[in-house]
Amino acid sequence: MDVVDQKAVDALRFMSIDMIEKAQSGHPGITIDAAPMAYVLWEKFLNFNPEDDKWLNRDRFVLSAGHGSALLYSLLHFNQFDVTLDDIKEFRQLGSKTPGHPEFGHTKGIDATTGPLGPGLGMSVGMALAERHLASIYNKPGYQLFDHYTYALAGDGDLMEGLSQEAINIAGDKKLSKLIVLYDSNDISLDGPLSLSTAENEKERFEAAGWDYVKVTNGNSLEEIQKAIEIAQGTDKPTLIEIKTVIGYNTPDAGTNKVHGAALGAEKVAEARDAYGWEYDPFEYPAEVYDRFNQYVEEKKAAHDEWVKLFEKYGQEYPAEYAQLTGNTLDVADLVDEYQTGDQIATRVASSDVLQQLAKANPQFWGGAADLASSNKTALKDDGNFTPDNYAGRNIYYGVREFGAAAATNGINLHGGSRAYVSTFMVFSDYLKAAIRLAAIQHLPSIFIFTHDSLAVGEDGPTHEPIEQLAMLRTIPNVQVFRPADAHETVEAWKVIVKTTDKPSVLIASRQKLPVLAETKGADVEKGAYIISPAKTQEPDGILLASGSEVALALEVKAKLQKQGDYDIQVVSVPSIERFKEQSAEYQEQVLPTGVRHRLAVEMGNTQAWYQFVGLDGRVVGVDTFGKSGKGPEVVADYGFTVDHVVDVFNKMWEDQN
Amino acid sequence: MDVVDQKAVDALRFMSIDMIEKAQSGHPGITIDAAPMAYVLWEKFLNFNPEDDKWLNRDRFVLSAGHGSALLYSLLHFNQFDVTLDDIKEFRQLGSKTPGHPEFGHTKGIDATTGPLGPGLGMSVGMALAERHLASIYNKPGYQLFDHYTYALAGDGDLMEGLSQEAINIAGDKKLSKLIVLYDSNDISLDGPLSLSTAENEKERFEAAGWDYVKVTNGNSLEEIQKAIEIAQGTDKPTLIEIKTVIGYNTPDAGTNKVHGAALGAEKVAEARDAYGWEYDPFEYPAEVYDRFNQYVEEKKAAHDEWVKLFEKYGQEYPAEYAQLTGNTLDVADLVDEYQTGDQIATRVASSDVLQQLAKANPQFWGGAADLASSNKTALKDDGNFTPDNYAGRNIYYGVREFGAAAATNGINLHGGSRAYVSTFMVFSDYLKAAIRLAAIQHLPSIFIFTHDSLAVGEDGPTHEPIEQLAMLRTIPNVQVFRPADAHETVEAWKVIVKTTDKPSVLIASRQKLPVLAETKGADVEKGAYIISPAKTQEPDGILLASGSEVALALEVKAKLQKQGDYDIQVVSVPSIERFKEQSAEYQEQVLPTGVRHRLAVEMGNTQAWYQFVGLDGRVVGVDTFGKSGKGPEVVADYGFTVDHVVDVFNKMWEDQN
Repeated sequence: MDVVDQKAVDALRFMSIDMIEKAQSGHPGITIDAAPMAYVLWEKFLNFNPEDDKWLNRDRFVLSAGHGSALLYSLLHFNQFDVTLDDIKEFRQLGSKTPGHPEFGHTKGIDATTGPLGPGLGMSVGMALAERHLASIYNKPGYQLFDHYTYALAGDGDLMEGLSQEAINIAGDKKLSKLIVLYDSNDISLDGPLSLSTAENEKERFEAAGWDYVKVTNGNSLEEIQKAIEIAQGTDKPTLIEIKTVIGYNTPDAGTNKVHGAALGAEKVAEARDAYGWEYDPFEYPAEVYDRFNQYVEEKKAAHDEWVKLFEKYGQEYPAEYAQLTGNTLDVADLVDEYQTGDQIATRVASSDVLQQLAKANPQFWGGAADLASSNKTALKDDGNFTPDNYAGRNIYYGVREFGAAAATNGINLHGGSRAYVSTFMVFSDYLKAAIRLAAIQHLPSIFIFTHDSLAVGEDGPTHEPIEQLAMLRTIPNVQVFRPADAHETVEAWKVIVKTTDKPSVLIASRQKLPVLAETKGADVEKGAYIISPAKTQEPDGILLASGSEVALALEVKAKLQKQGDYDIQVVSVPSIERFKEQSAEYQEQVLPTGVRHRLAVEMGNTQAWYQFVGLDGRVVGVDTFGKSGKGPEVVADYGFTVDHVVDVFNKMWEDQN
Repeated sequence: MDVVDQKAVDALRFMSIDMIEKAQSGHPGITIDAAPMAYVLWEKFLNFNPEDDKWLNRDRFVLSAGHGSALLYSLLHFNQFDVTLDDIKEFRQLGSKTPGHPEFGHTKGIDATTGPLGPGLGMSVGMALAERHLASIYNKPGYQLFDHYTYALAGDGDLMEGLSQEAINIAGDKKLSKLIVLYDSNDISLDGPLSLSTAENEKERFEAAGWDYVKVTNGNSLEEIQKAIEIAQGTDKPTLIEIKTVIGYNTPDAGTNKVHGAALGAEKVAEARDAYGWEYDPFEYPAEVYDRFNQYVEEKKAAHDEWVKLFEKYGQEYPAEYAQLTGNTLDVADLVDEYQTGDQIATRVASSDVLQQLAKANPQFWGGAADLASSNKTALKDDGNFTPDNYAGRNIYYGVREFGAAAATNGINLHGGSRAYVSTFMVFSDYLKAAIRLAAIQHLPSIFIFTHDSLAVGEDGPTHEPIEQLAMLRTIPNVQVFRPADAHETVEAWKVIVKTTDKPSVLIASRQKLPVLAETKGADVEKGAYIISPAKTQEPDGILLASGSEVALALEVKAKLQKQGDYDIQVVSVPSIERFKEQSAEYQEQVLPTGVRHRLAVEMGNTQAWYQFVGLDGRVVGVDTFGKSGKGPEVVADYGFTVDHVVDVFNKMWEDQN
């Protein structure tokens, strides 16, 4: 590499500085110190085509240290992505293409939304999993469709997050040799020098987890960086390249946390211009730099075009495979529901039945569990395990690493070409909630299966009984949560889930057996809530709402109320509050007539979500304290989930209001 | 150790087997394989007194692998804690002293509630932090008050959790040499052999994090275990003792996951009795075993009694220090509120002011941040950092390890003798939510400070703008969440927080400046909600509810509504929904008269929590989508948090209902 390359690196630095300065907001430190590694990686190694940002076999790049967004936008601009100089000038402004942190789906060329530390690494592991898996299944003689690398750029903060340890363990265990992490090792975090909080040896740590390690002692040396990446590409393990840098290199506050998170200010920018000998005005960059970038990009485009031709030919020879790779939906035509009324079936078991059928019809459907496959019932029974010896295996054993598993699942779904789910106990949704949020922000169709969904878990007690998790999950924007009442509703919920391509879905299932109801067969789960047992009149005496295991209870309560007081009651099954709220006002009115105020919701969980439906005059039989250890049915009864108690609550409500 | 000791080990095993068998529920595998290490630790090393389970300088023992509860209950029983044979027989039954997982505060002798994997390790780090800190501050010449060890017993699953990496890094960085982890290394997790999901070298991993490592090759050798613990006590770093065991040793399914999580069944129990030569009936244990345990316990009691005498003498010589160590409340007498109406003060800054005052008056008050002390404004300015050279320092730099920091905070508060807080950005409460839950389950007064509380964060965009976190936090049982409206309310919230000793508190603060209001001075934050601007009549036209930064907005909305339509409006400030719900029906009625149905809640967050107050006829101006990147005020306005928009919503509600 020559002086023009060096000038190009500095152009990246100054474009970042310029945009942060204009916005008076952003993180200059990393954009300056990581520009050399980013430049070498993007121009000398990264396969992409700015005109085809969804190219399946492109190399993936995840800026795990998402606060370096300005550097990424600079790369996108110079590499001919659709980020203009005007966009650059709108950095961090409302509605711009260049928001504060990189947003997948919002700006072309961004492979993952990052910002919170850790998840970028986790998602890059998922992308590398996907590459190995798709290569195993879809590469054919003469068709090396998949062979790309996944690169992440991570900082000290990323590596401190526990999630990163889960991620590197998954990658190490699965020997994801095409995963390469560039570690911007600048020894500074927000609060100051790393020595305030860390005494860890990253080389030893990564090697302990089955990684290779390469060190770059001078993070400004393009040659040294280039050599390191070449070495990393040649090993049979994932590789950490630790690149020693000086945060905010060549600026007045270089090497300190002062240069991390705020614009430099005019004076220090001027000093930086002097230090770098950078003679250009803000937002002015030399033509030779543009020329150099263009030169690199043209080579990349040629490589891309060859692949596209190959893929077209592949499509003719392997049309089914081609369709799986390019379609974004799963085949549910053959999903059968053979459950009989009165059968006793845990919804986790019904869900498992569906999973097997889906797997049979859809080779691109796969997933794993955080060491609870046997309890969650989420293993694909006719399939093998995803291991270094068998990347075609569709069962991923993530270990007891909920957050890492969920982040990897997002990475698989970001990658494209397949569709992945992940499972754990519902109470441990707490551990991975931030991954669901990131799936939702990115509009990923990740599927989260949470079993053991209530007090009925019983003996394992309060630490294992979800109480507030359902309410928590329902608060995340752009997520659809399903808690089916029985096996029938489980089948219908799965149909909606696999059809959904623009948001994550959560399936919540019982550990305990639940009666298969007559009324749920072919139920309208898609609408989120439906009348499972209509009232006799248009203006019933009351409405009972319930989800999951409490739907059967609500039907029994109705029967008793009718017998006891000749009440006319409508029972509404609510498998998905989010979907119900998306329905027309007319439908909602039909299910919950405005005039009926004796409304009683029954659900074994926090009550918060139900008041939007029962209002000030209704009641909720829920759980706003922690659970207890005991036999499941005894615990359930102890918390009032009995016909008698719910009937009493209804009667009390009736008395209070009449 | 002799044959009786060996018999005592087997008694622990069979008591565990017996109770699991009777309950037909539990986890026999670990209770069998870890009995030797637990026995050696408890009898040969652990300092405790069953008659004084709150002894401040007792050695702490955390069963991080909480599913081994039966083993712990067996230890408690034989070591004279208040766990009778009848209690043992009630294992996992509703209301018993021996629930499914160990519960702190429920059964004497249990130092931490465990079960979910990971947090036990995290809390043990906090206990070890507390020991070093208290020793530094409170030990005096001739008074070696604090010098205890903290032991954790962890399994393979614990070590896989990302949280454990954060915990071991904190411990390694702070050189917590009195922390010793016994690692029950049985190579099995729930789904099967560890090789399904892990290729990690634990020795290298822990050494990389600044730990010492000792290996016990035969987990059945009491001598080898004893030697290992002796070595661990002698080093100047925390130590991992990896103890190789066979899960369910000497039972038919030994060495497999079949013996992990279900009762063995009569047949296999019989085989185990044969294999061990255990000739006793279920719930029958030899007298010589009881004698041996009693012998050990008597020695321990003597050591305890000496310490108590020393502490009493200390109390005479150092009454102030004694009071700090034994009191469980903080002094808030001198908390001043000198803010003036119209001042512009971010509540994170007001909170920082309070922190400084609290720290001055209360040497036992301390805390740290997950690498955001400078943004959260939570550093104690007159105090040093907690480092290996200065354990007296009251500022803990945890690094970017939110979950580890929160778990350690719980550990400090479990330890007793001091009171700790922890801080991060509000959006990262997602990462540590499970720690808040565990604080709540254990009734710990941990304090969580979350700043940057809304869309007003602005430029950092959707990944950094909390939306649903407030609703999430409010769903956790036994937690009080405060979102003060301004500096005045911040002071009052802190008063309630420091007085609260039986549950965790969350303080939510703004990044942006907020006007100090006239109406909030000395406000009744303790009641959770109060009338900040009363209506003129008993039956006002409407009620506005708001929290935090939206309270000032609500007051402006009222002014405009009065001017515009002569509406009689009551404005209610709601700093804490949880506390408001604990008030008398009379008070609640006074604040929110039942007859007034034109209710409008305004809060920059998920709307879920507000419907319990506004009902079917009211409205919520909230945020049920993700945020955006842009200038704070622009983003806030874009989402409708302007006087005009809120007034419009009120008018629309009025039209719809009248």
